[in-house]
Amino acid sequence: MKRIQIFDTTLRDGEQSPGASIDSSRKIVIARQLAKLGIDVIEPGFAISSPGDFAAIQQISRELHNVEIAGFARCVKADIESAIQATQDAARRRLHLFISSSDIHLNFQIRKSREQVIQIARDMISFGKQFVDEIEFSAMDSTRSGIEFVTELVEAAIGAGATIINLPDTMGYAIPSEVEELFRTVRREARGADRVRFSAHCHNDLGMAVANSLAAIRGGATQIEVTVNGIGERAGNCSLEELVMAIETRKDAMQAETGIVQSEIFETSRLVSRTMRFPIAFNKPIVGRNAFQHESGIHQDGLLKNRNTYEIMDPEAMGIPRNMIILGKSSGRHAIKHRLSEYGIIVNEEQMQTVYEKFIVAADKHKIVSDVELIRMAGEATDTQPDPYVLTDLQVVSGTQRSRVASVTVKEASGKERSYSAVGEGPVEAVIRCIQQAIPAAAEFEDLELHSLSSGENAYGEAVVTILYEGRRFRGTSIHKDIILASAQAYVAACNQAILSSGNKQEGDGLEEESAV
Amino acid sequence: MKRIQIFDTTLRDGEQSPGASIDSSRKIVIARQLAKLGIDVIEPGFAISSPGDFAAIQQISRELHNVEIAGFARCVKADIESAIQATQDAARRRLHLFISSSDIHLNFQIRKSREQVIQIARDMISFGKQFVDEIEFSAMDSTRSGIEFVTELVEAAIGAGATIINLPDTMGYAIPSEVEELFRTVRREARGADRVRFSAHCHNDLGMAVANSLAAIRGGATQIEVTVNGIGERAGNCSLEELVMAIETRKDAMQAETGIVQSEIFETSRLVSRTMRFPIAFNKPIVGRNAFQHESGIHQDGLLKNRNTYEIMDPEAMGIPRNMIILGKSSGRHAIKHRLSEYGIIVNEEQMQTVYEKFIVAADKHKIVSDVELIRMAGEATDTQPDPYVLTDLQVVSGTQRSRVASVTVKEASGKERSYSAVGEGPVEAVIRCIQQAIPAAAEFEDLELHSLSSGENAYGEAVVTILYEGRRFRGTSIHKDIILASAQAYVAACNQAILSSGNKQEGDGLEEESAV
Repeated sequence: MKRIQIFDTTLRDGEQSPGASIDSSRKIVIARQLAKLGIDVIEPGFAISSPGDFAAIQQISRELHNVEIAGFARCVKADIESAIQATQDAARRRLHLFISSSDIHLNFQIRKSREQVIQIARDMISFGKQFVDEIEFSAMDSTRSGIEFVTELVEAAIGAGATIINLPDTMGYAIPSEVEELFRTVRREARGADRVRFSAHCHNDLGMAVANSLAAIRGGATQIEVTVNGIGERAGNCSLEELVMAIETRKDAMQAETGIVQSEIFETSRLVSRTMRFPIAFNKPIVGRNAFQHESGIHQDGLLKNRNTYEIMDPEAMGIPRNMIILGKSSGRHAIKHRLSEYGIIVNEEQMQTVYEKFIVAADKHKIVSDVELIRMAGEATDTQPDPYVLTDLQVVSGTQRSRVASVTVKEASGKERSYSAVGEGPVEAVIRCIQQAIPAAAEFEDLELHSLSSGENAYGEAVVTILYEGRRFRGTSIHKDIILASAQAYVAACNQAILSSGNKQEGDGLEEESAV
Repeated sequence: MKRIQIFDTTLRDGEQSPGASIDSSRKIVIARQLAKLGIDVIEPGFAISSPGDFAAIQQISRELHNVEIAGFARCVKADIESAIQATQDAARRRLHLFISSSDIHLNFQIRKSREQVIQIARDMISFGKQFVDEIEFSAMDSTRSGIEFVTELVEAAIGAGATIINLPDTMGYAIPSEVEELFRTVRREARGADRVRFSAHCHNDLGMAVANSLAAIRGGATQIEVTVNGIGERAGNCSLEELVMAIETRKDAMQAETGIVQSEIFETSRLVSRTMRFPIAFNKPIVGRNAFQHESGIHQDGLLKNRNTYEIMDPEAMGIPRNMIILGKSSGRHAIKHRLSEYGIIVNEEQMQTVYEKFIVAADKHKIVSDVELIRMAGEATDTQPDPYVLTDLQVVSGTQRSRVASVTVKEASGKERSYSAVGEGPVEAVIRCIQQAIPAAAEFEDLELHSLSSGENAYGEAVVTILYEGRRFRGTSIHKDIILASAQAYVAACNQAILSSGNKQEGDGLEEESAV
């Protein structure tokens, strides 16, 4: 079994996603989670590119002593000095140097001959080697450079002291057979190749980053460079979670394994999405909300008989809560009953029939049924009010005025109604502040995701609210033509779920103990 | 050069994406676009699953005579009869039969022996053959079935009259080398394999659907089954646009080509996303809004010298407008100037400097700069008002009340301000109705996409509005903490862009002809 090192560049190449913004000062938050996930090497930024990045690299180097830190630099002295300085306090570190190797880059961009490129690489590796032992050398655009020249350049780099050789598919241009051939040939032909570690860095422009990374492993690579959620330049980099789960699921074929703590995969993905403001596609493998959602009746039938019929991975092992699996048109009674029980709602057979009939009507209308709707249906069917708090009235004014005002009326389980008002910079902020007053056990608001679910002027919008309550994370969803109302409903739903599932009785909420299962 | 047939199952397997809902009656709209795109075979639904699907298949079979129609059916007489009936009027059609071939499905789901499965396949193919010549046979889960049994089953299917053999990777479990080996072996070993066409149908659970499809082609497949935007069960199917562009971009290595009209790729992707209510990930290859966006300064520098340095495909050839490429932190002056010119705004060097300085400040703050903001900056820098319409006041009430009311004040280029009000089911609808009154050349509102760009209670939201104006499509974007206000701004921006770029002078808008370049 080959042990594959995972090199994470979410905070360097990933941060180059248009729209994936992160304050340098918040990079430490992601880096801590990456360390918890069991990443082998973290590349936290590009030291010379900005003082913020420099400081972030320094902070991460100082704090995280169980992970190796890579200092990224062009083959330029100033870059190297900056990278060396920023990673000074790391327990383990490497210098990561790169230069282009393809003719098109040489001729049109850097305007150097092949001989000059080899000389620069040699000189700068020797220069770096004075400060740090581990040197990773990347031949940028190597899949478009011709194997012969890559071999020559790699040989020179190893001769000068490089200890890790990275062959990036910078443009996402290669196909797997070419990548395997590239690694195999260079490792066979370049003198000294047996002394160093080989690494792949693949982009996803043609949708082949994961397959190309696996091909590199077959060709002899033992390090793969990835980003969380596959963010990065253009169509992004090889996705961490896809690569890791491909290796782990197909250990038999790959004869390889990683040191990744699988149960941290989902939380890492969500943290990066939230912190870097980059939504995850519904159909994203592993971490998308549909990834373990089976719509076809045939598949659902198989799953009920044996999960392995239609599931090759166990979502819960990756920390993916089953309630992230959304309910839709073809969800069975069992799935609906189970979801209700997660909210502490127990229904008998007759009630279940009523809920199911309402469910089918709603699912036909807009295919997804949100938890809020489902709970409402259950409430109607059981004649009980399972929710500690019900939003009975909402008014919000949006617009160009300086601040937005909202009023919210909430009915407590005792039947008492109370109204609250607040202002905010946006209508959602105003609503959140009202609800925080209305629900005293107010959980910490963490995140709101908005999506439009249809087109046209009177489209439905979906809101997903994430909250923290006693250290645990809860989510509520709602669908409505009024996106602000949907946001409010989703927030209340998340609070209700938190209160019910923690088993905390709220004062005067009138809930029976057993309903808060 | 092998000609690869593209088989589209967006309307059957794609429709099994949780959340990718489509009214059966609207399937024809997508099917028309698929025909325009040059798809070889369309699978429009599962006839027996619902009367709506049956009717849609019938309608598509009647109308689209330049494309082959596939009727999908289990190996069950009722399914086959329904599929045959629904496709009756097609100019060209095939019956698509499937049955599981893996032991886990046989033992736990369908509870049949291998011998029984072979017998059922044989019988049902013979049954179908009475009605239709072309029969596609799929051995479901074939990548987990063992090559030997797949060979045996395929041989029986060919013997009974199957003319196309599909070997699906139903669970997205295989790696490329295994897929190539599967196709190569079955084609070599199964008697009659030389008389039939082989097809692949790959899922993306481990991120390898495209690579596995290419591997199938290397193994001898000449048909690939895909969905637009890669929608489908769980993590989805092989993405049409990624597969086609991988083949076309790597013709040299694949020695293969398709009949796809590349210039229709982007419009097909947007149509499916809008109609089936399934957003496209920012970093989706080919059609994501970041797919051709270069953030790194090094890459941007290369692009300015020669586009081929960092671009392996030409987005415009796929119908992707360059103004979909968003502006951010590292956009150069040239890109900004060019974007302004698309809105008819010409700036001199000095004005450009002022705009650029404001741009950098805004880009630092939230990395993306929307067109609305950019135009505002240009307006301030040039002391002219380039927009025919400016939104000066907005008020909208959201909430639980029956309808939402909005008022909008718009300043025309003449300086005149007018106010309008309207109601709607949601706040966005009310706003749109106001703006439609305010802007008489009101373009047809087509789509609104909402995204949250950050987390926390006072997060920024992004709105993208698409409109149709004189048959052309225009988009406006805006970012604001008030998502309703952002939606209104984006709509006004789209109208302004439409009016300016069509060169239509609005009555009394005071625009000089040359500013509407």
